[in-house]
Amino acid sequence: MEKTITVLPGDGIGPEVTEAAVKVLQTIAKRFNHTFNLHYELIGGAAIDDCENPLPEETIKQCSQSDAILLGAVGGPKWDQNPSHLRPEKGLLAIRKHFGLYANIRPVKAIPALLDSSPLKKEVAENVDLVIVRELTGGLYFSEPREKSHDHALDTLAYSRTEIERIVDTAFQIARSRRGKLASVDKANVLDTSKLWREIVEEKRQNYPDVELEHMLVDSTAMKMITQPSAFDVIVTENMFGDILSDEASVITGSLGMLPSASTREDGFGLYEPVHGSAPDIAGQNKANPAATILSAAMMLREAFQMETEAAAVEEAVFNVLNDGNFTGDLQVEGKRVLSTTEWTAKVLEELD
Amino acid sequence: MEKTITVLPGDGIGPEVTEAAVKVLQTIAKRFNHTFNLHYELIGGAAIDDCENPLPEETIKQCSQSDAILLGAVGGPKWDQNPSHLRPEKGLLAIRKHFGLYANIRPVKAIPALLDSSPLKKEVAENVDLVIVRELTGGLYFSEPREKSHDHALDTLAYSRTEIERIVDTAFQIARSRRGKLASVDKANVLDTSKLWREIVEEKRQNYPDVELEHMLVDSTAMKMITQPSAFDVIVTENMFGDILSDEASVITGSLGMLPSASTREDGFGLYEPVHGSAPDIAGQNKANPAATILSAAMMLREAFQMETEAAAVEEAVFNVLNDGNFTGDLQVEGKRVLSTTEWTAKVLEELD
Ligand SMILES: CC(C)[C@H](C(=O)O)[C@@H](O)C(=O)O
Ligand SMILES: CC(C)[C@H](C(=O)O)[C@@H](O)C(=O)O
Repeated sequence: MEKTITVLPGDGIGPEVTEAAVKVLQTIAKRFNHTFNLHYELIGGAAIDDCENPLPEETIKQCSQSDAILLGAVGGPKWDQNPSHLRPEKGLLAIRKHFGLYANIRPVKAIPALLDSSPLKKEVAENVDLVIVRELTGGLYFSEPREKSHDHALDTLAYSRTEIERIVDTAFQIARSRRGKLASVDKANVLDTSKLWREIVEEKRQNYPDVELEHMLVDSTAMKMITQPSAFDVIVTENMFGDILSDEASVITGSLGMLPSASTREDGFGLYEPVHGSAPDIAGQNKANPAATILSAAMMLREAFQMETEAAAVEEAVFNVLNDGNFTGDLQVEGKRVLSTTEWTAKVLEELD
Repeated sequence: MEKTITVLPGDGIGPEVTEAAVKVLQTIAKRFNHTFNLHYELIGGAAIDDCENPLPEETIKQCSQSDAILLGAVGGPKWDQNPSHLRPEKGLLAIRKHFGLYANIRPVKAIPALLDSSPLKKEVAENVDLVIVRELTGGLYFSEPREKSHDHALDTLAYSRTEIERIVDTAFQIARSRRGKLASVDKANVLDTSKLWREIVEEKRQNYPDVELEHMLVDSTAMKMITQPSAFDVIVTENMFGDILSDEASVITGSLGMLPSASTREDGFGLYEPVHGSAPDIAGQNKANPAATILSAAMMLREAFQMETEAAAVEEAVFNVLNDGNFTGDLQVEGKRVLSTTEWTAKVLEELD
């Protein structure tokens, strides 16, 4: 198959980790006889430096002619004092909105080799295997009106039925393809948007009698994510709650440096990126952990290109390298071998060859 | 001194735990020669059952003639299907708003005897000693407009300068009285209300040069609360973020059953209640842990009545009882002695006598 991929390295360690993932994609292409046409474009701080626009027209154009987008990370202290339209994360928000990527999907799975570096007790973290489905283009992030004066400020949390229905459907479908459990998270005892959310989830559940549904409040969910994270299968929630809960979930298994994500829409087009940030403190030092970006590329192979075998091969290679005791410096594992980004990537490529 | 206290037992285990705290207050009164006039009133489900109003006029009247309010807990499955104006938690929201109790203060401190029951590794949880200062009468909880139709719903996140200034001042003052560190939590990369929040915090910091201030994003805070909770001293944030983060924080040390809270305003008048809920599953069985309510009564003595010695005596009694190996059934501690609510309370009273 022939596929076109736009690569957006971004800032900080972004270029290093996307480079690693690109090598993996090239190896997969060779082994499985595919052609991946790769185009590099700017986003975030790198784009601001180049043309004072965190999401240049050129980037949008190239992405819209592609089958998928691979992103590294955006942001860094260099741009922290910029006015808000010249902030790197504006590029991220804008690309999500422009392409209507409403479904942010973040799997979190405990990796036995990494449990030592989890802040949670082993018995709490070891069976974690959950997916957070976060609504990504609505709610407080994008709603109008918003106002700010010297004495007052206002944001609007609005959701339409259509926005809620499609993300809820996505989540039910993912739950069905996994262990069949869905937790819908809201604050229905306080918010009108949550009341509508809960009503729609109740309507939708009729279509998924095989899925076991539970409504949970966001505050209790924040607790259970720590006390009993292995009880979750799929979690679906609105944009801001999803931002908080998915970051919370990302640290429970000690494998933040390993977590991939996808931001997609109905037709499967999407943006694939690691959950971690741009880590400016270690940028350019060949120290970054490329695993999350490599696993994001695997998600792309599976979700965007329906290349299940190829995706599984990448995942297996990554886990084999870890299980052989090879780690990058971010992972605190007893008695491990510490490799650089390129050394660690080379091990994965060997496995794939 | 003579003080008038309104006791609102509420629902579930509420009556049992407030009864325990009342006994403690009576013992303190005797020992230190105070008079506490106690008045019992209804709130939540109990009030709905009595007069179809989760916050009856009579309760408001009695509270407004008091020096402080002691609350148990509200809610339970019995009222879960009620229309929203007849839900127990409406009573809680209404009493906060009616009395302008804008500052919710929740200390979370690791208790060595309980660390076994923490989901976090001992080395992560053991030095936790933080206070969350949550804005309690603004933001999404109370803002207008709010709308809900079949196809659309909307809530408003609004804050005025005054609302932000007063809670930020409260937090700086608490930080100053502790280790002098304040983390102000917002989502300033997305929300206009957070931008105003951050500006005001920047203005206010001039008045507190002795406090070390850090701005943090709510998503990173949700992570750090798990990976490095002992790094926090005081955290200040808006209502909804505070709801989520304070519940998250409540489980990290394994001592949810021990956590007190205060909801107060400028003049020190306030409502004191345990952080835990009404636990309908164990209600009426003499199993509930009364420690959080007893420690809330201690907060009342200190904050509302300036009775520092009395407050410290209660706290010491509680910790002595725990350190002697006496626990209620909710705490999973190796080799512990399990006591009923009344037995455990009796131990505390003995210590105080
Ligand atoms: C950078 C920021 C705007 C973004 C968000 O809040 O969505 C990030 O935290 C994320 O979760 O991808
Ligand atoms: C019961 C509910 C409305 C309340 C809140 O969200 O404020 C509770 O969760 C709390 O934190 O006191």
